[in-house]
Amino acid sequence: MSDVYVAGAGMTRFGRLDATLLGLLAEAGAGALRDAGSPEIQAIYVASMDPEELADEGSIASLFAAYIGRPRLPSLRIETGTSSGAAAFFAAWTAVASGYHDHVLVVAGEKMTSRPTPEVAAILSRMIDPYERSYGATMPALAALVARAYMEAHDLAPKDLAQVAVKNHANGARNPLAHFQRPITVEEALESRFVAEPLRLYDCCPISDGAAAAVLTRERHRVRVAGIGHGADHLALRHRDCLTGFRATQAAARRAYAMAGRSPRDIQVAELHDAFTPFEIISSEDVGFFEPGQGARALARGRTALGGDLPINPSGGLKARGHPVGASGLAQVVEIVWQLRGEAGGRQVDARVGLAQSIGGLASNNFVTVLEAVA
Amino acid sequence: MSDVYVAGAGMTRFGRLDATLLGLLAEAGAGALRDAGSPEIQAIYVASMDPEELADEGSIASLFAAYIGRPRLPSLRIETGTSSGAAAFFAAWTAVASGYHDHVLVVAGEKMTSRPTPEVAAILSRMIDPYERSYGATMPALAALVARAYMEAHDLAPKDLAQVAVKNHANGARNPLAHFQRPITVEEALESRFVAEPLRLYDCCPISDGAAAAVLTRERHRVRVAGIGHGADHLALRHRDCLTGFRATQAAARRAYAMAGRSPRDIQVAELHDAFTPFEIISSEDVGFFEPGQGARALARGRTALGGDLPINPSGGLKARGHPVGASGLAQVVEIVWQLRGEAGGRQVDARVGLAQSIGGLASNNFVTVLEAVA
Repeated sequence: MSDVYVAGAGMTRFGRLDATLLGLLAEAGAGALRDAGSPEIQAIYVASMDPEELADEGSIASLFAAYIGRPRLPSLRIETGTSSGAAAFFAAWTAVASGYHDHVLVVAGEKMTSRPTPEVAAILSRMIDPYERSYGATMPALAALVARAYMEAHDLAPKDLAQVAVKNHANGARNPLAHFQRPITVEEALESRFVAEPLRLYDCCPISDGAAAAVLTRERHRVRVAGIGHGADHLALRHRDCLTGFRATQAAARRAYAMAGRSPRDIQVAELHDAFTPFEIISSEDVGFFEPGQGARALARGRTALGGDLPINPSGGLKARGHPVGASGLAQVVEIVWQLRGEAGGRQVDARVGLAQSIGGLASNNFVTVLEAVA
Repeated sequence: MSDVYVAGAGMTRFGRLDATLLGLLAEAGAGALRDAGSPEIQAIYVASMDPEELADEGSIASLFAAYIGRPRLPSLRIETGTSSGAAAFFAAWTAVASGYHDHVLVVAGEKMTSRPTPEVAAILSRMIDPYERSYGATMPALAALVARAYMEAHDLAPKDLAQVAVKNHANGARNPLAHFQRPITVEEALESRFVAEPLRLYDCCPISDGAAAAVLTRERHRVRVAGIGHGADHLALRHRDCLTGFRATQAAARRAYAMAGRSPRDIQVAELHDAFTPFEIISSEDVGFFEPGQGARALARGRTALGGDLPINPSGGLKARGHPVGASGLAQVVEIVWQLRGEAGGRQVDARVGLAQSIGGLASNNFVTVLEAVA
């Protein structure tokens, strides 16, 4: 297996944008290629969850290659629901690690705000087990079930969840690409309307447009892909043996750490999938940073804040940076690359080893990626 | 790069079927796993072009893993339009060749007949360059342009195209899984109605349901993946420098042969992408079997028939076996595996080295795979 490095990273502004899906992907891709010193890439890996229904575009991989004027570059699309960006990074990594390609471009994006919210919600609901969906379950409703189970098991109050939103909005305020760049208070979060009790508006990520990109290469660069894991679990919540942790993340993390020869103690910065506030807390336990039930306590003590010993979601996370579904898994990797290279501006932390964790669906198809700065 | 072998292959009947997309994928997958001796697979690669719009299913990879009762197996979906099945085989191959996985299952399928034909045609048209599409171009219309250019350049008559359909229907009649299992005559073909002049109904593949599957492994098995190539070209026909050959196939073939250490002379059986009859002739030249303009002559002489020196589409091809778009690229590989193992029943040919070639869109995203029997 060849060593694989991230040679370049790029990202658009996230938010409610005028640009098209292709325009967003192209902007992110151009940024990553420029950052990489414009190597001779041999293939393009494209992630987008549902460009057919969200952006009325098909054959998105070929269309993207044509759009950027590189029609003879082979292109593939990868999709795993809301973790598609991480999945494309993984698939591109296998192509480079195998020695088949030397340099590849990965782009990941979604255009979500041109469809009415109920349509978007219906599309997202396809990630739910069909039987549970038939009873009207939505993503926020199931996330609320998970939140209740966790809060009950570990004696959490609504304000404990709100701390995730407050921290991530504070970080987003330092990220010029974030969807939301305004700090919020616990009071504001606790006064926002219910989306699905106990989850309030500020417990949920927004619907965003945006794209991210990375160039992977066999040539030595400043950031190495040290470990990647891909894990899965039952689609149906009723079939799971645990609601207060996600086995798909746990399995992905085990593989990623084993491959990297690392343990959770080695990680100095992380981007975790906080589509709903309880998910950040649960994910911080699933990847082994904290014992089950201790994630909220670590958060409350400020350990995961920018100035803490293990900053989580310095970008603002899905909560404040935004969540263009197909893009998020790659946007997390891009943030870690920037952090490891010391290019994260006003949200820079001190780290040589970082981790990105992405959730597909309701934690049924997850990825964990460990990245290291190269001495 | 590790050697990768095909440990098992499976396929459903193709045609207008009652089964759901998940049912088809599961049937093909179970066949491939059984054939492989049920190894401990570590991941699932799923190809489907547009399950969202054609089958009203999202997150198809996770859904498939859950459907077959293997929810904790990581799964990914791959899409490149009509070559998605070949693309998933390629992506799974990189995962095994890199050493990341030891055994993976690839499944590819499409459910097309539950939507009205005009809706299916509109979905397929998304593979066309948007500007050309804006003038009303459809896939058959653009294939007809290519056919005209080729017929003009090489002095072909309509009956020369019809020979492809006659040969492939004759082969399909020997394939119990084929959509069409009835031989046709040149006269029948030439009397069928025009779809897009000069292409008649019998020059075009049907709209089919179906699925195929394969198990890839690092363990030595009877069929080895010797070479894989992925090639691309302009989406827009008006931007191409050649209409009588497909550069995407030519590029993919060069890479596949180079990797395999093989030349076109070594190939003893091939499955080529005959979604339209002229495409088989053009593809047989693009992969280097015949000089430009000589493909139809070789066909007319019977060289590519079952009893010829280089049988093409012994399965019946897309024309007669059928074309469930996401499945076809993998169905071709499955047919070659069966041929190399001597398991192709009444359509068996004598071959140790075979080739599969799949076209994505209007030949903008193509794959060539070379397979070898292991001594």
